Amino acid sequence: MKNVVSVYNTLSRTKEIFKPLNPPLVGLYVCGPTVYGDAHLGHARPAVTFDLVFRHLQHIGYKVRYVRNITDVGHLENDADEGEDKIAKKAKLDQLEPMEVVHYFTRRYHQDMDALNVLSPSIEPHASGHIIEQIQLIEQIIENGFAYSVNGSVYFDVLKYNNEHHYGKLSGRVLEDLLNNTRSLDGQDEKRNPFDFALWKKAQPEHIMRWPSPWSEGFPGWHLECSAMSARYLGNQFDIHGGGMDLMFPHHESEIAQSVAAHNTEPVNYWMHNNMITINGQKMGKSLGNFITLRQLFTGDHAALEQAYSPMTIRFFILQAHYRSTLDFSNEALQAAEKGLDRLLKAYALIPSLKAGEKSDSDVKRILDSCYQAMNDDFNSPIVIANLFEGVRIINSVSNNLESLTASDIDVLKSTFDTFVHDVLGLKADQANNINDDHKVGGLMELIIELRKNAREKKDFATSDKIRNMLSNLGIVLKDTREGTNWEIDK
Amino acid sequence: MKNVVSVYNTLSRTKEIFKPLNPPLVGLYVCGPTVYGDAHLGHARPAVTFDLVFRHLQHIGYKVRYVRNITDVGHLENDADEGEDKIAKKAKLDQLEPMEVVHYFTRRYHQDMDALNVLSPSIEPHASGHIIEQIQLIEQIIENGFAYSVNGSVYFDVLKYNNEHHYGKLSGRVLEDLLNNTRSLDGQDEKRNPFDFALWKKAQPEHIMRWPSPWSEGFPGWHLECSAMSARYLGNQFDIHGGGMDLMFPHHESEIAQSVAAHNTEPVNYWMHNNMITINGQKMGKSLGNFITLRQLFTGDHAALEQAYSPMTIRFFILQAHYRSTLDFSNEALQAAEKGLDRLLKAYALIPSLKAGEKSDSDVKRILDSCYQAMNDDFNSPIVIANLFEGVRIINSVSNNLESLTASDIDVLKSTFDTFVHDVLGLKADQANNINDDHKVGGLMELIIELRKNAREKKDFATSDKIRNMLSNLGIVLKDTREGTNWEIDK
Repeated sequence: MKNVVSVYNTLSRTKEIFKPLNPPLVGLYVCGPTVYGDAHLGHARPAVTFDLVFRHLQHIGYKVRYVRNITDVGHLENDADEGEDKIAKKAKLDQLEPMEVVHYFTRRYHQDMDALNVLSPSIEPHASGHIIEQIQLIEQIIENGFAYSVNGSVYFDVLKYNNEHHYGKLSGRVLEDLLNNTRSLDGQDEKRNPFDFALWKKAQPEHIMRWPSPWSEGFPGWHLECSAMSARYLGNQFDIHGGGMDLMFPHHESEIAQSVAAHNTEPVNYWMHNNMITINGQKMGKSLGNFITLRQLFTGDHAALEQAYSPMTIRFFILQAHYRSTLDFSNEALQAAEKGLDRLLKAYALIPSLKAGEKSDSDVKRILDSCYQAMNDDFNSPIVIANLFEGVRIINSVSNNLESLTASDIDVLKSTFDTFVHDVLGLKADQANNINDDHKVGGLMELIIELRKNAREKKDFATSDKIRNMLSNLGIVLKDTREGTNWEIDK
Repeated sequence: MKNVVSVYNTLSRTKEIFKPLNPPLVGLYVCGPTVYGDAHLGHARPAVTFDLVFRHLQHIGYKVRYVRNITDVGHLENDADEGEDKIAKKAKLDQLEPMEVVHYFTRRYHQDMDALNVLSPSIEPHASGHIIEQIQLIEQIIENGFAYSVNGSVYFDVLKYNNEHHYGKLSGRVLEDLLNNTRSLDGQDEKRNPFDFALWKKAQPEHIMRWPSPWSEGFPGWHLECSAMSARYLGNQFDIHGGGMDLMFPHHESEIAQSVAAHNTEPVNYWMHNNMITINGQKMGKSLGNFITLRQLFTGDHAALEQAYSPMTIRFFILQAHYRSTLDFSNEALQAAEKGLDRLLKAYALIPSLKAGEKSDSDVKRILDSCYQAMNDDFNSPIVIANLFEGVRIINSVSNNLESLTASDIDVLKSTFDTFVHDVLGLKADQANNINDDHKVGGLMELIIELRKNAREKKDFATSDKIRNMLSNLGIVLKDTREGTNWEIDK
């Protein structure tokens, strides 16, 4: 592997050289959505970020098994694992079986991800499909003494765990502070300590999503699924675990605790967290009520939006910031992204028409090298983009005969754009351009039919025949009727 | 419900009036694909058939919960439930984790179904995600005395079941015949009778897909998942179970036996089976090696294909036959379907431009009534299509001023086409028409630029200005450069 990648590891708070456990294999796990509503910008960022990681690692030769889960059970309303399951709540509101809600929003999530050109992961396990693995994990944790059951529920014993290990190593939280800040909530009296978290919850009678277990008919705690499914598909120890920064505590912290308690091994070598998208400086999130869904962005149908933004504009907007920086939403920023992307793709499209000169006035090899260097340096997409814009400048200059590039340097430039614009950043011309094509073909045909009519009126049959022949080559047939000339696509 | 639907019930071999258990709710379960390869015509037929059922029942006011499963474990190579799991085998060949194979082909199946305009079901449960429900079902069957465990595997006791119930009631098979025709296969010696089938199989050491159970680490038998998942999402008794005729025995027969053995209730009120697609009179199927995948049909990339066929042509081809008739594949038949669909959709597109007259020469209300009648009569799509073609004839006559329709009759015709072409048959203009639009716009622009050049050379500035202005209205800008005229879409 000639590319040496460095990764900012949340565990060490430093950039580390990436050394996979079993090269060229890489195990990558990323927390996916809880499917009870449409995806918003806050979902798009981790999806695009780890799509970038997935694409780059594959491009430089790794064979990546990318697991991104679907949370379809057990994600409760608040961090203390009490209250009502979000999906069950949505199902009750809509009078649906919870799995209908799950299926509906999973499908829409996939459509949104496809629109953003986010590659499908290798495996997309559902939490509800891995109850057995979760029960086995709980049994292991109990056997090792780090969990206790009360009234049919099972809780993780954080204090006991922290005596032997370190609860807080990822997030930097200190247990004493947690103790003072934990709110008193329903069901808390079953716990030995308020910061203990549920591994299994006994289902209330009205709860639909429930499974038998050694402790009760119930359902798993939210943190458990990721520990169980990552171990199932990537092993007890794997390379990279990603997710949004908001999941670092308590979710990822608890994942580490569960895995260490069950297997006595550190589950993850590199923890990667993308920073948040803010809207006017505030976190965007479903529970905060200030979110704009991706579908609203794509259609412009939201009071905060001045216009519709195409999926590729959203993707480019996200990639213009490094994944560890915050990214603030505004119409101005998205409009700037739209213009920038347009300039980038237009220049890209010009490359095949560039005419080679005898010398090169610019060092295009340097751009290629800088793109690799930036991606290898903790996936620094904004620096890649800055380098590509240096390429845009050169392309436009060569196209306008203001500077010159040799044929081999044009090839280098083409390969740079193919690799980084298309393969690694995953940018492409938007489908949106085609949506109006029907309309355009119709308009152009109207014009052509009128020009032909004028030609015939002037007895310019050379022109009118030429029109008919050129259209015929395009598979378009003209039909002259008493009411005028119609056209149709020849089958 | 003013529409009375009759359904051919395989159980009674007659058409019966459809009476759902809890109107307006309808429970519909259909056997979905085993995801270890791309879908072929043999998968398209049940998908389109039950999509038609789903669409029509919803159109006439039922609230349908449509469950279609994904078989991702336990579908063995042969009917006797021995040998190797198809997915595990494919995974081994490709050196992948079985769930990677499952994810890859499930995604492709969804893309193919979207292309065919097959609506997504309400719930799409995976067999591997319902192991607990399957184990519970086995326990119930054992408790009721209809299954026995041997060496960690569990088998259904067909002979014992048949003493109290009727194994063969769906397929009409007779147990004695089965006895004489069952091949002797590996593992058969564990069974009391060769026609007994596995509910649970102990996993061989090399088997990856395995779960703990009261009997062994193993995996469920193929027939079990549908009994378990239909009961989970539709109840122990539900309205309609559909699938291909090839699944009637042993799969559906065994489903009935399992459900009756566990719950002592008939699980399904109406069994519906679509007939097979043949190719030169032979069944098409993966195990027969003569199949053409949908992707090959869409691209034309198969030795047996004279051309590519669009997804809508395939859909129309399937709907042109009643679902209980065989349907023989041939290039001629598909080409005829392509032409017929084109004629249908062209006439549909003409409706808005029809000019109303003072009287009606045709009885269009009769067409609407006949369409409802045909759909209510066991979903008779070919008769619906025949009626729509009577509509096509009328539309074309009115369009050519050969006959006349009143405004309100034009509305009836429009509503008939909207309902039956669009909503119920699920036909729409193919995306394929748009695929070439980029190319067409480019070709038309070339022609227009040349016409403008000629006009300018002849000092016909009126024409050249008109061209520029009309293009500008379409959002197309011309740029004259030293090398000639370019054009671009104005942003």
